[in-house]
Order: sequence, then C-alpha cells, then structure tokens
Amino acid sequence: MRDLSNRLDLMSVNTATFGHQWPIAKTIELLATNKVGGIAPWRREVEDGDDSVAAVARQIRDAGLTVTGYCRSAYSTGPTKRERQAGIDDNRAAIDAAAEIGAPCFIMVMGSVYDGSRDLDGAREQSIEGLARLLDHGRAVGVALALEPLHPMTAGDRSCLNTLAQAIDWCDRLDPDRAGGIGIAADVYHIWWDPALHASIATAGDRLLGYHVCDWLVPTTDLVLDRGMMGDGVVDLKSIRASMESAGYDGLCEVEIFSAQNWWKRDPADTLKVAIERFKSVV
Amino acid sequence: MRDLSNRLDLMSVNTATFGHQWPIAKTIELLATNKVGGIAPWRREVEDGDDSVAAVARQIRDAGLTVTGYCRSAYSTGPTKRERQAGIDDNRAAIDAAAEIGAPCFIMVMGSVYDGSRDLDGAREQSIEGLARLLDHGRAVGVALALEPLHPMTAGDRSCLNTLAQAIDWCDRLDPDRAGGIGIAADVYHIWWDPALHASIATAGDRLLGYHVCDWLVPTTDLVLDRGMMGDGVVDLKSIRASMESAGYDGLCEVEIFSAQNWWKRDPADTLKVAIERFKSVV
Repeated sequence: MRDLSNRLDLMSVNTATFGHQWPIAKTIELLATNKVGGIAPWRREVEDGDDSVAAVARQIRDAGLTVTGYCRSAYSTGPTKRERQAGIDDNRAAIDAAAEIGAPCFIMVMGSVYDGSRDLDGAREQSIEGLARLLDHGRAVGVALALEPLHPMTAGDRSCLNTLAQAIDWCDRLDPDRAGGIGIAADVYHIWWDPALHASIATAGDRLLGYHVCDWLVPTTDLVLDRGMMGDGVVDLKSIRASMESAGYDGLCEVEIFSAQNWWKRDPADTLKVAIERFKSVV
Repeated sequence: MRDLSNRLDLMSVNTATFGHQWPIAKTIELLATNKVGGIAPWRREVEDGDDSVAAVARQIRDAGLTVTGYCRSAYSTGPTKRERQAGIDDNRAAIDAAAEIGAPCFIMVMGSVYDGSRDLDGAREQSIEGLARLLDHGRAVGVALALEPLHPMTAGDRSCLNTLAQAIDWCDRLDPDRAGGIGIAADVYHIWWDPALHASIATAGDRLLGYHVCDWLVPTTDLVLDRGMMGDGVVDLKSIRASMESAGYDGLCEVEIFSAQNWWKRDPADTLKVAIERFKSVV
C-alpha cells in the first residue's frame, strides 16, 4: 500500500469541499501553492464562471494540477422522453467541457424516481439507457463515464445506483467487452457500510476510475450535507484504500466533503490545511 | 397475492407507531375495537409498565390479538466481553418475556461500531457471536431470533446488519441445517432501495419471519424518526409484498412508523384510522 505521508501529489481536492465560496481561479491557486496534486471541479465553476472553459483549462494546466474528475451529470430519468433527452444533451455538453479541462472522467450521478413515480426499477432502466446514449461520445472525446453509486439513503431522489455491485453490473451490461470508456467512482461515504465492499472493489478492478474520501459522522444530521473530515468519523479509510490498491487502483485520492454546517463555513485555506494533515495521516 | 382490502386480520401494528403515548392496555383496546389482527409491542411497555408481563399477555390474548414480534434486542457489540455479555443476558430475559406474551419472534437490532472503534467487520463478528449464544435459548422457549437488517444509513451506530443478503448469510452460518429458531424481519423502510431486493426475498424464503411496512419520504429529514405513512412516500409497497408472498410469507403485515414530527404528535386513534385506510388500499 502506498505511503501517503509525503505524497501530496496523490491528493486531489473536489472543489465542493470548500462550499463553492471562491471562484475556481482562487481555488486552483490555493491548491497549487500547497503542492496538492489534483483538482475535481464542478460545472458551475468551469462553465458558468467569469472565465471561459479554455481559460480555466489553461489555469489548471499551468498550475500543474491533475484533474481527477468533472462533476457532475444531469439525470436522465423522467416521465417523458423529452425530459430524459434534455438530461442526455446536457451531459453531452458537460463531457465536452470535461475533455477541454483534461478530466479523464465525468462523474455520473443517476437520479432516481421522479415526482409521482414509485418505479425504482424503471428509473434504473432509464439511467442505463441514458448512459448507453453517452458512451460513444465520451469515448470519442476521451472522457470516461464514472458511475458513482450513491448511498442507499439517496434512493428516493438522487440516485437509483446504490452499490458497487450494481455499478459493476451496469458496466458489464454497457461494456461487455471491456472496451473501456465507462467505469466506477468509489466514494467511501457511499460504500463504506457495504458487507460486499471489499469483494466488490476486487471485482471492479480496472473499472475503478476514481477514489473519493471523507468520513461518516456519528450522529449524521443531514442526508446530504453532513459529511465529515477524514478521521472524524467511523470509516476505516486505510482498509478501503488497501482494497482499492490491491484491485489495481493507482490514481489520486480525492477529498470530497459536503458539510454545510461545518467545513463550508470555514475559510478554504483552513479547511485545506486540516485536509492535508488528515490525508497524510489517516487516508 | 392476497387481497387486503377486507383483511384487517392480516394487519398488525407496532406500538412504536403511536409514539409510546399510551400505556399498552389502552393500545390493545384500540386495536381490538378496530378489529386489527395483530400487535408488536416494545419491552418498555410490557416489562416496565404498570401491569405484570403475565397481565399484559392476558390482555393481548383476551383481545384476540396475534403478536407479530417483540421489540427489540440490546446490542451485543462492545469493547469488552463484560459489556457484550450484558447485552446477551438482557436479550435472554427479553426472550423469556417474548415467550410469555406469545411472540413468535424477538426482533434483533444488532448495533454497530462502538465508541472509538472503526472496526465494522469486528462488530459484525461480535453480533454473530451474540446471536449464536441466544439461539438455543430462543429455540427452547419457542421464540425465533428475527434478524432485522437496518438501512445502511444506520451502519455508524445502530446496525452493522444492513441488507437482506447479509441477513441470509448470517442465518446460513448460524443455522446451516435450517433447523429454525432464526430468521429475518423484512422492513420495507430498510430494504426497499436494494437492487437485490426481490432476489433476496426469494432466497430468504421460509426464513422470512415478519414483514414491516411504512414508507420512505422525499425529502427525509431525519435518519431515524422521519418515516412516512404507507402511500405518502416512494416505496412500491405492493411489489414488495408480492415478492414476500411469492417467497411463501403468509403472515401479518406490521405497520411500524417512527415519526417524531408528524404521526407521533397525533392522537393514536387518528393515526390508526389513516393506517387502516392505507393498509386496505396501498399495502
């Protein structure tokens, strides 16, 4: 297992960790100054900011940062073909931006049952259809679709993709010949509880496109925005990373913390300082 | 699939649904008056109430109610043998009370990592050990251990048993010859999201000892106490019951709603009225 204590080049930070307080140029500078290796930006910062996508891409490149992922997809679930198509079209545009900033993958958050529906299996089929219709485009521009299973507590609204085993199954369906262009983003927050965790990571193997870290707090007070800093919760982070690396994952470890009441209220520089300490010691 | 529209004899109510506002004698009377078939009481009402366990047992029997389960176990996870033993001893006493009130099963909620530990696998092994040390006693007095997998969002504190597949695995380990005395309580709130849901129910087969219903609300604002009334959320209840019955389950359907901000603030008679309507129409 890699020793991270002196390997900030293997640390990436998802910009959501700072609560989107800053424009991305400032975040890029903060990460570079602290010799952090990577960044995972959000569409709102890259496509809706003051600078052009090309300019943001240049800033990231000039800062020497590795992009570990681009966040995140629109949903391709919905009651009408038109609504589902709108999600797919939006994702296609995002994949182009992902390519432009040098992201190896686009994070796919699938959505779930839509208003008035209880058809979870149907939402799953719609999601697979949406992925199928993006795969060739992603391959053409060199951006893989990174399926991110979200915690089962999100199954009512945010994600009908809830376990690694399910993500592996979808990859097998969409890419039976393992041609690539589709894989899995493994986020400890969503998967740490899974009795099949270590076995699923091993099975996923070279389909593992990303590894996201934070921690599960006890108690957790919000289903989305109460993630903990690594080391502040109950997740055995090192054992999960050991499985990831045994399965062949050799990429960066991306810190992603949604924390409306705590970390998002702090100065990004202070948050980064703690994240770096924890990255070196507990990740 | 059974038609429940005129089968209140197949409806059971877990007394937690009323927020423990009333002494159990009054709840028993309410259920009997409304011709509800069953009840699932809690230890605090039966063992810590004004009446003796024998008296409560008589009230339930005289009211013609079927007991569908007895709630619920102490945890047998913990840092020391002494603490784990205390949980086991407590459960043994509860099983005796369960037998006295005629409960066919005792609901096992397993607990999880204890303060200061991140060893989820260890908590799982401690839990299995705790079950192993209760099984013979339960068999001797005719009370089955009903393993209830709780939602993965409880894995940090309340339960290290999180899926039906995992519960099936534990049953296989503890009762490889299928001698009985151990099985599974399937609660839609905890399992509805599972991609393996229907397959796991089929596999569980005659190990299904109970079926609990409520609904998953969108949004959900609390990880424990924000369950919905059947029909108010996104769970496709009829499809789950269809799988249960296909797997051979022919017992009662137990309504169990933890709802601190809504149903627990209402008069139990009003809550029951709505639950009965929904039982007939959407369960």
